[in-house]
This record gives sequence, C-alpha cells and structure tokens, in this order.
Amino acid sequence: MDDRLKKQIDFILEIDKEKSIFRQTSLTNHGRKENDAEHAWHMAVMAWLLSEYSNEKIDVGKVMLMCLVHDIVEIDAGDTYAYDEEAKKTQGEREEVAADRIFGILPSDQGKKLRIIFEEFEKNETPEARFAHAMDNFQPLLLNNSNGGNDWKEHGIRAEQVVKRQERCKGASDVIFAKIMDIIDSNLKAGNLRD
Amino acid sequence: MDDRLKKQIDFILEIDKEKSIFRQTSLTNHGRKENDAEHAWHMAVMAWLLSEYSNEKIDVGKVMLMCLVHDIVEIDAGDTYAYDEEAKKTQGEREEVAADRIFGILPSDQGKKLRIIFEEFEKNETPEARFAHAMDNFQPLLLNNSNGGNDWKEHGIRAEQVVKRQERCKGASDVIFAKIMDIIDSNLKAGNLRD
Repeated sequence: MDDRLKKQIDFILEIDKEKSIFRQTSLTNHGRKENDAEHAWHMAVMAWLLSEYSNEKIDVGKVMLMCLVHDIVEIDAGDTYAYDEEAKKTQGEREEVAADRIFGILPSDQGKKLRIIFEEFEKNETPEARFAHAMDNFQPLLLNNSNGGNDWKEHGIRAEQVVKRQERCKGASDVIFAKIMDIIDSNLKAGNLRD
Repeated sequence: MDDRLKKQIDFILEIDKEKSIFRQTSLTNHGRKENDAEHAWHMAVMAWLLSEYSNEKIDVGKVMLMCLVHDIVEIDAGDTYAYDEEAKKTQGEREEVAADRIFGILPSDQGKKLRIIFEEFEKNETPEARFAHAMDNFQPLLLNNSNGGNDWKEHGIRAEQVVKRQERCKGASDVIFAKIMDIIDSNLKAGNLRD
C-alpha cells in the first residue's frame, strides 16, 4: 500500500511541471501565454458544457479525463505549435518516449490505463477521442478570437492552415464545426488571418 | 441554438479569468504561486488517481467535475487563504453573490446544474463532496511538503491549524488522512510548522 501511494504521489508531483509548459495561445484580454495545465482544465470544463453538441454518443467522464491528461507527455516532449511543420515531424516519437517515462512512474495498472487513454486520444478513432480533439482545437480558437486573432497575426498564419487543422472537428460536432468556420471567416475578413 | 451556444461561449471566456486568481501555494521546485485553474486541474487528476482510497463509494466523474468548477466563484470573490480567519467570515456571502453572477451567464439549465454541484461541494455532506474536499486539502499539502513547508513558514502557521483544517479529510479517506498526518508530523519535527 505504502509503495503504491508513494508512486501515485511521485506522479502527482511530477505532473506539476505541466504548469510550466507554455503554449502559443494568449489568455483573454491580451494576457500572457497560457500553460498546458490551464489549457487542459479549460478543455475538460468545455467538454462537459458542450457534450450536447457531439454528433455521436460519448462518455463525458472519459472525455474529461482524456482532456486532463492528453498533454502530460509535453513535460518531456515540449509543446509542439500546431503550425510548426518541422517540429510536428518528430512529435509522435518524442511523445511516445515521454509517455513511457511519465506514465511509468505510476503503479503499473494505473500507468497502463492512462497510457491507453492517451493513445486513444492520439489515434483519434473513437467518439470520445474525436470530441476531446474538438475541444483541443476549439479552446485556443475561442481565446484567440477574443483577442482579435493576435496569436495568428503574430505567426502570420493563413486561413487555409486553420481550416485544415480544424477539419478534424467536423466528425465530432456539426454545431461546433459550423461555429469554428464562422470564426475563421470573420477573422479572414478582418485581416487577422492571411488569405 | 445560436443564443444557447453564445451563452456557453460567454461562460467559457469568463472562466478564463480563473487563470489569474493566485493562491498561497507555490509550485514544486520552489516555483511561483499557483493559480486556481492549475489547482483545479491537479485536483481533478488526483481524484481519478486516488479514488481507490475513498472510504465510501463515489461517482469519480462527478468528483472530477466538482474539482474543476469549485473555485469559479473566486473570479469575483477572490481566493480566501485557508488560515485567514477574518476573510473566512465573509467568504460564504461573497461566494454566493459570485455564483449568482457567473453561473447565471450559462443557459439556465446548465447554470442550475453547476450551481447545484458547487453547493454540494460547499455543504460537504455527500461522499463526492467529502472526497473533493480531501483533494482540495491534499493537493496544496503535497506541493508545500515538496518545498520544505515554505508556504507554512512564510505565514508562520502552527501545526494545530493544519491539523484542524485537514480533519475534514478524515471521513473521506483513512489512507489519505493517515498520510496527511505523517506529513504534518514530519514538518513539525523539521521546524517548518510552529508548535
């Protein structure tokens, strides 16, 4: 028992580092960049709030857990910006090595369970994984839109890049995908995204 | 539909402010103070990991949701430090007013659901609320212990104050409560807590 609880506490303290992994998205009101823990928290709340828009029946609790843990690997692998094509080439490999180490801190039964949840998210082949990905895309889009598309302007992003990335939301939710397309369109018209 | 989704998005953007409500707990490795969103994320992951130690049968998904939203009221009411007896006198009233406004942003059915979850947490009378409170106490204790009790030293906290606060974990989990008492004891011996 003591050894089991010790491993769980070691993992709890290890994932504290996720609060220091910063993303390219700024907080609302033109705030600082957000970190992975904040992003995961926001996504999990959104999953609960927006689950009614899922195209498919989903286990919301499972989606929430997936949202909470999907970025833990970035403690070792770092955040890979959605439009950094070079970094994305090595992202999968870096994240697998990270998953081995970090989930390996836990008692093996729990480490395996979280690893399976993480792999399910990555493969994006189940209704829960599709909905979690929709939250992963919609959350920074909402923040960025609230800031006049500043994150896109900063990186000179083109509308077609955003559309391509957001297309994986299509299967998850028609309602959310329609809203995303509206937001992209208005940011293109406002000159926040390049044509 | 459009009006409903608009209200949900307004709420999602409003709660972004939770990332700027700072607590008295420092991140591991003597880091900066943590914020409410990070704390809620950490608690929700812990609830999933440690649910096996609950004295009572719990709905883990419900505990996770409770952890995720329990501090939203602090956007208006601010963080009340666990050992600030003056601020704690007005905490309940401040948080009720905040709950009215913030949960009121949502479509009324969802606003009511989250308000009920929040009130259940506050009353601390169900197995889920008791376990969420245990996470709310255990999470900063683990961070603080990893930093040699610095948060306690900074505020000159006495061991009996911590014991009193942590006593509400007793009903939630014998295993976690025993671990908490061990940690308090070792910090008292090390001089990190006053006698």
